[in-house]
Amino acid sequence: MNGNVERLERVKAAMTAQGLDALICRLPENVLFLSGYWPMVGMTFLIFPLDGEPVSVLPLCDEREAEADIWHGEIVTFPFGILTATDPYAAVAGALRARHAEGQWRRVGFEGSFETIAPAWNAAEHAILAGVTIQVLRETLPGAELVDATDFLHTLRATKTPWEVEKFRRTNEIATFGLAAFYDGVTVGASGVELVAAVESAILTQGTGYHGARRVRAFAQVSTGAAETAEGFRPMVISTSRKLETGELALLELGVVADGYWCDRTRVRVAGAATPRQRAVYEAVIAAQDAALAAVRAGVTAGHIDAAARQVIRAAGFEEGFCHVTGHGVGFRYHEPVPCLAPGDPLVLEPGMLHSVEPGVYLPDLGGIRVEDNVVVTESGADLLAPYRREME
Amino acid sequence: MNGNVERLERVKAAMTAQGLDALICRLPENVLFLSGYWPMVGMTFLIFPLDGEPVSVLPLCDEREAEADIWHGEIVTFPFGILTATDPYAAVAGALRARHAEGQWRRVGFEGSFETIAPAWNAAEHAILAGVTIQVLRETLPGAELVDATDFLHTLRATKTPWEVEKFRRTNEIATFGLAAFYDGVTVGASGVELVAAVESAILTQGTGYHGARRVRAFAQVSTGAAETAEGFRPMVISTSRKLETGELALLELGVVADGYWCDRTRVRVAGAATPRQRAVYEAVIAAQDAALAAVRAGVTAGHIDAAARQVIRAAGFEEGFCHVTGHGVGFRYHEPVPCLAPGDPLVLEPGMLHSVEPGVYLPDLGGIRVEDNVVVTESGADLLAPYRREME
Repeated sequence: MNGNVERLERVKAAMTAQGLDALICRLPENVLFLSGYWPMVGMTFLIFPLDGEPVSVLPLCDEREAEADIWHGEIVTFPFGILTATDPYAAVAGALRARHAEGQWRRVGFEGSFETIAPAWNAAEHAILAGVTIQVLRETLPGAELVDATDFLHTLRATKTPWEVEKFRRTNEIATFGLAAFYDGVTVGASGVELVAAVESAILTQGTGYHGARRVRAFAQVSTGAAETAEGFRPMVISTSRKLETGELALLELGVVADGYWCDRTRVRVAGAATPRQRAVYEAVIAAQDAALAAVRAGVTAGHIDAAARQVIRAAGFEEGFCHVTGHGVGFRYHEPVPCLAPGDPLVLEPGMLHSVEPGVYLPDLGGIRVEDNVVVTESGADLLAPYRREME
Repeated sequence: MNGNVERLERVKAAMTAQGLDALICRLPENVLFLSGYWPMVGMTFLIFPLDGEPVSVLPLCDEREAEADIWHGEIVTFPFGILTATDPYAAVAGALRARHAEGQWRRVGFEGSFETIAPAWNAAEHAILAGVTIQVLRETLPGAELVDATDFLHTLRATKTPWEVEKFRRTNEIATFGLAAFYDGVTVGASGVELVAAVESAILTQGTGYHGARRVRAFAQVSTGAAETAEGFRPMVISTSRKLETGELALLELGVVADGYWCDRTRVRVAGAATPRQRAVYEAVIAAQDAALAAVRAGVTAGHIDAAARQVIRAAGFEEGFCHVTGHGVGFRYHEPVPCLAPGDPLVLEPGMLHSVEPGVYLPDLGGIRVEDNVVVTESGADLLAPYRREME
């Protein structure tokens, strides 16, 4: 059932190197990463020992999907969300006590600092790892040192296996359904929220079932006109019902997830014909993306890629408008911290790293222009995932 | 700017009763609850002292929206998401140290146990309150006892002010755009994901701007046919691309948020004509909802409302199919823990409590039928928010 044995081998080698006897994960992204199962609700606990089989403790209502996807190990269920529901923490505590009694773990990694931003109106309910879980770990693992495994997991997650790369390629392919809807939809009179609806609908309806994808979701933000797109570098943009006028820009920021594997894409379009200045900025951004893509390969630094893009935009005279990094990690989450393609960043790119390449220029009078795609670092260059048209007009 | 002064008075009275000198909140739902501002990203910290004005520490990119919405107090910003970004924790630490030096707080409440489920594919990025924030609190508040204020906040949140009730009524009205799309869309040949897309698109495009609503989102799940709808009680359902056949059920579970205020609605439809048995279950569910709605009023117990609904379904012979509670709190989150309309629950309903009324019956051969609306408890009965047609055929 597990085509990703390489992942487990890498994790266990890293655990050995770090002296970790077990990992306990509850965040859905890490459960997926270590077990192949993306939890339906957030109450799944994965006990992942260095020696022996993992144990997945999960709600009974998730059992069928879990059995279909989990690579190996034992599944323990508890009733959840119905009148006969029991305490999930009691279930995981029992499993932890039993495994700790067997393994006498000395060092146990947990998700101690996965503390991050949340665009709250994209999220029906938040996942919070708080006091209750940490208390269960303390009580059930006497004698074991609890180790914050956040950096450990982020680092492991940064470098994808070939099996995982194909999952991310599929998500990028699904994203192109939304890019196509955006290209079709940008016309005079269309609003930001209408374009969001069109993009998200296309991805949901065409992406569900695409090469077996079951849980597909898009999170689109579309800004329109100079004032809105000039702020298109903000981490969250409010899409509005203002209507595109002739010659105005529309900027699409698009996150897509398919069964837990994410991508992050951006396109820009003009409703009608562009002005010469819009064209000049657009051409600089495209040339910067091309320069960055050409610079990607294993062994170069993240800062080197940023410099390749920034140099092109500087030469075109728009450097002050390029206020963010050239790219960031993408993977088990929409935005991953490793790698970060920032000026001077010394991290050396490794084969299998997956990141965005997204130069952008934002000028108050003109608006914002950004193009973004996702690549996998290889020994010889960049594997561009699901390329798609980039023209602005 | 603040039409909800009653909220602040209630919170301060409760803080006095609990001996809390300050509250520190980072979860967007609690920042909204205590300040009127629903954060754009999750990096806003609200320092809410019993004495003196609050301080909101937030990303510079959110400043404009924050200034428009925050009721009172000081705003401190830090650059975020751009090349000049600084450490958000340093900003909040500075504000905390200064305020603690002034106030010499003895007991400070924080969000220590907001640990809950997350339907992960509804969430582009999760909010996690983890070790980093707690460490900042420990380091910046020497001599102060850190108190887990989770129950404190849940209890306060359960009882809405009249100003808040109108926010929730607006969200329920926006939800009816989606219910209408569902009623229009259920036909032979339509798929679950197509219905989800239609419902979410209607709410996004028609709800944005409705009575000033700016950030509107719907999270719909549509199950179709007997096998899928029979599991419609599960906390998360995967909408699929299978197409409705004649006489099959479609079940819509719908969460909607408008500027941070949530609602939770459910409708069921048949593609074509229902069978006599489908009709019998449907009529029992409607009669159960009516009985529960008639039973709601301040002073009765949550268990009493559950009994009113359950008795009707028992009399109709379908009790074994009604496997969940009759209702739950709704408000600053899609599902709130207070009140819980479970069998025998002794909680006495108070004016201003807002909860769902959602009897349902799930039978393996027939499928699942549920109807759900939201009500506010009043002295004289139930204030049904944005009533909408319920018929199945």
